[in-house]
Amino acid sequence: MGNSLTSRSQDYSQWYNDLILKGGLADYSAVRGCMVIKPYGFGLWENMRDVLDRKFKETGHQNAYFPLFVPKSLFEAEEKNAEGFAKECAVVTHYRLKADPDNKGKLIVDPNARLEEELVVRPTSEAIIWNTYKNWIQSYRDLPILINQWANVVRWEMRTRLFLRTAEFLWQEGHTAHATKAEAIEETKKMLDVYADFAEQYMALPVLRGVKSANERFAGAEDTYCIEALMQDGKALQAGTSHFLGQNFAKAFDVKFADKENKLEYVWATSWGVSTRLIGALVMAHSDDEGLVIPPRIAPLQVVIVPIYSKDEAMKARLDAKAGEIIKELRAKGVSVKYDNDDSNRPGWKFAEHELRGVPVRIALGPRDMENNLAEVARRDTKEKLSVSLDGISNYVADLLEEIQQQMFNKALKFREENSRNADTWEEFVRLLDEQPGFIYAHWDGTPETEEKIKELTKATIRCIPLDNPQEEGKCILTGSPSAQRVVFARAY
Amino acid sequence: MGNSLTSRSQDYSQWYNDLILKGGLADYSAVRGCMVIKPYGFGLWENMRDVLDRKFKETGHQNAYFPLFVPKSLFEAEEKNAEGFAKECAVVTHYRLKADPDNKGKLIVDPNARLEEELVVRPTSEAIIWNTYKNWIQSYRDLPILINQWANVVRWEMRTRLFLRTAEFLWQEGHTAHATKAEAIEETKKMLDVYADFAEQYMALPVLRGVKSANERFAGAEDTYCIEALMQDGKALQAGTSHFLGQNFAKAFDVKFADKENKLEYVWATSWGVSTRLIGALVMAHSDDEGLVIPPRIAPLQVVIVPIYSKDEAMKARLDAKAGEIIKELRAKGVSVKYDNDDSNRPGWKFAEHELRGVPVRIALGPRDMENNLAEVARRDTKEKLSVSLDGISNYVADLLEEIQQQMFNKALKFREENSRNADTWEEFVRLLDEQPGFIYAHWDGTPETEEKIKELTKATIRCIPLDNPQEEGKCILTGSPSAQRVVFARAY
Ligand SMILES: [Zn+2]
Ligand SMILES: [Zn+2]
Repeated sequence: MGNSLTSRSQDYSQWYNDLILKGGLADYSAVRGCMVIKPYGFGLWENMRDVLDRKFKETGHQNAYFPLFVPKSLFEAEEKNAEGFAKECAVVTHYRLKADPDNKGKLIVDPNARLEEELVVRPTSEAIIWNTYKNWIQSYRDLPILINQWANVVRWEMRTRLFLRTAEFLWQEGHTAHATKAEAIEETKKMLDVYADFAEQYMALPVLRGVKSANERFAGAEDTYCIEALMQDGKALQAGTSHFLGQNFAKAFDVKFADKENKLEYVWATSWGVSTRLIGALVMAHSDDEGLVIPPRIAPLQVVIVPIYSKDEAMKARLDAKAGEIIKELRAKGVSVKYDNDDSNRPGWKFAEHELRGVPVRIALGPRDMENNLAEVARRDTKEKLSVSLDGISNYVADLLEEIQQQMFNKALKFREENSRNADTWEEFVRLLDEQPGFIYAHWDGTPETEEKIKELTKATIRCIPLDNPQEEGKCILTGSPSAQRVVFARAY
Repeated sequence: MGNSLTSRSQDYSQWYNDLILKGGLADYSAVRGCMVIKPYGFGLWENMRDVLDRKFKETGHQNAYFPLFVPKSLFEAEEKNAEGFAKECAVVTHYRLKADPDNKGKLIVDPNARLEEELVVRPTSEAIIWNTYKNWIQSYRDLPILINQWANVVRWEMRTRLFLRTAEFLWQEGHTAHATKAEAIEETKKMLDVYADFAEQYMALPVLRGVKSANERFAGAEDTYCIEALMQDGKALQAGTSHFLGQNFAKAFDVKFADKENKLEYVWATSWGVSTRLIGALVMAHSDDEGLVIPPRIAPLQVVIVPIYSKDEAMKARLDAKAGEIIKELRAKGVSVKYDNDDSNRPGWKFAEHELRGVPVRIALGPRDMENNLAEVARRDTKEKLSVSLDGISNYVADLLEEIQQQMFNKALKFREENSRNADTWEEFVRLLDEQPGFIYAHWDGTPETEEKIKELTKATIRCIPLDNPQEEGKCILTGSPSAQRVVFARAY
């Protein structure tokens, strides 16, 4: 049975939505721009979150929790940050509903319950957190503060897409406070590396590490570092950001500390975050026309075993017993495995279903194979099938999961390399964008005006200036002005 | 150095606040009624959450995530639920701020960005979830749905207290859907047992399991089951609730399924939750005038080792080396341990600090003890100190942690037993409430009117009708009408 997915070549956007919805990751909700993350999608997020959380703790961070609401007067305090988010803020103005006198059983907002000061639903938490840090920091002994928060945030986007851009999303936001500029910059880069390692080693997603141009910087940051990934349609996706905030928030909230010489100094800040958007990146980077392809290290389910029952009850018992053995061995190795022996669906239907959901490895156990001490092992990424001896099959599968992880990364890296090109003229730049989209390395004169103009003309933006970027003299593709390095352009999600 | 805590006898409320604030669990925030959960408090919550999450998964539940906002029209759908929460709803009415034309650098709510339909910030998620389940349930094959969500919720309480009652709080809410009434009731009770086991085995908190009277029932439930704990001031605290929702939400959202005979039936529902309020219960049940007392199984830090440095550098190195050994052995046993060798604070200051924070076991390693192959082990719960041989000290400490866990439970249980009394007359009831507050077992005529009247007169409420309550004929303490059983009264948080 087919699962009637739209193919990538037919309609890439619809393919993406089909995978999210039919693959069981998420569903639309009754709230404009908000989605429901279904158990399978949330299981994926839990696995990603657990790895990241461990990495944060290993690098000395602790979790905490700050209020959902930001009073408007605090929200305003750091002006650039406020400007950057003002246009997409959900605002709480009242704290009570009451019975509608004209409409039995209905409710209206109680006009007598207006808040004295409106509350912004946090689009990001710098303001509320720095207003708190003010009370926690007096001396250099109180520094550094290395805190992370797992939370929901709200940005009222006009055009939303499942996972990639939703009005509410889940994320983590690290907020650190330091005594020196150098230490804050080091933290910013360290967390960028944590993100990059996570993306590459767990999500099998190769990423460019770079720094944003001024136009693309986080509102209120001195520098925004980012990781950028390439999707199968040649568009870029920003997968994580780490911001060096300078002393902007310390000044806005008047957060000073006494240094060792008892001199008062403003505190240096960073913030860094990744969100459920990563799930969108994962889907678009790896999946195919049969469904999701999920890297084993973060897959909610790594292995499924499907018995091919015959009418022979004794054989059925033998299949169940053998499956039980394999499951026990795999679980002892820390592999997650499900036995799909539900009689009400045919094996072919199950195969399609597990392909759609991107389970990395499927084992089919049938009577004939059983007689020959074999099982059929199918890997989701390449769709190869192999007859494997039942002796030592759990070792085989555990190794295969690692191989799949590695090959998915290699495949994505090869794709990125094949879709990274230099453009030396405006004509070439425009032609590549339309005909062979991907990362385009091109010279730029370094001005925000030129970047803005290029964006207007082509919808392409500077994704980043890669770290350790080779220096190379050239001329800006738009203005012809001198340039000292190529930067990475792409159209982006 | 003392930590200048208010004592329980001096001012119980202030003692509680001191412990939360000075013990590093939480802080006030700039948002009315909302608090900041600090790293130490959040570490405690993470430990509690992880245990509960494992128990939920072991009982077949999966996590998912539903939107923060509930459109007003959905919120209204289940009338009793809507009535119950309408008076404490934060309401989003606008989705944009704009520059204040009269006040440079300030923002105002953009009057042109009014939502067509107001959004309620979820006080609980039955409405948004049942509106979603409607799309997920067609047939008996789609049932049961066993989903849990970890989330923040908002209830605009007028009088708030750290952890016990805050405008925003963190919780988990399970929402399940079933084909039969019996199965839903079984689920309701099963989750009550999960909560009770968690409270008793991990929080060392003995709880009564019972069912609420109609007055105290969750808005929209047919029956509310609860666990009730007794605090050191003799007031009760509801520590968790599990609701049998009948078909109320299925009817409100028109959620039907085709049964095996293809007949359409309304779905049966449950919901159940515990929140960060549990941290308040933990503090008030166990702590003392020196600070927090935290049960080892959920303590963010179980053991602290404090070296007593002398001026002898060689001895300092020996102390550090021995501490390193003990730490390694304890960690291998899964015990969390910190080496507090910060030179800038004196040992006595550190002892007071770790007592304040409720670290279950402190090991002091000093030169003289070292010469005798001993260390001083202090347990936080009883404040006993013992000289313990360094040989096998990690085994000793691991056992001691279990003993502390058990003794904390026993102590709390003894306290509850000593503060549970029968009252047979109105005079006795009132006298006990004022002079020996605790759980009062008394006869009640079963009417909401009498319960309401008792509450008005004494501020005591029916905490629960215990499960498997012994049947005993008697007369209502207020009205003298016949009663078939005693119920549990108390003043409550
Ligand atoms: Zn970038
Ligand atoms: Zn109760």
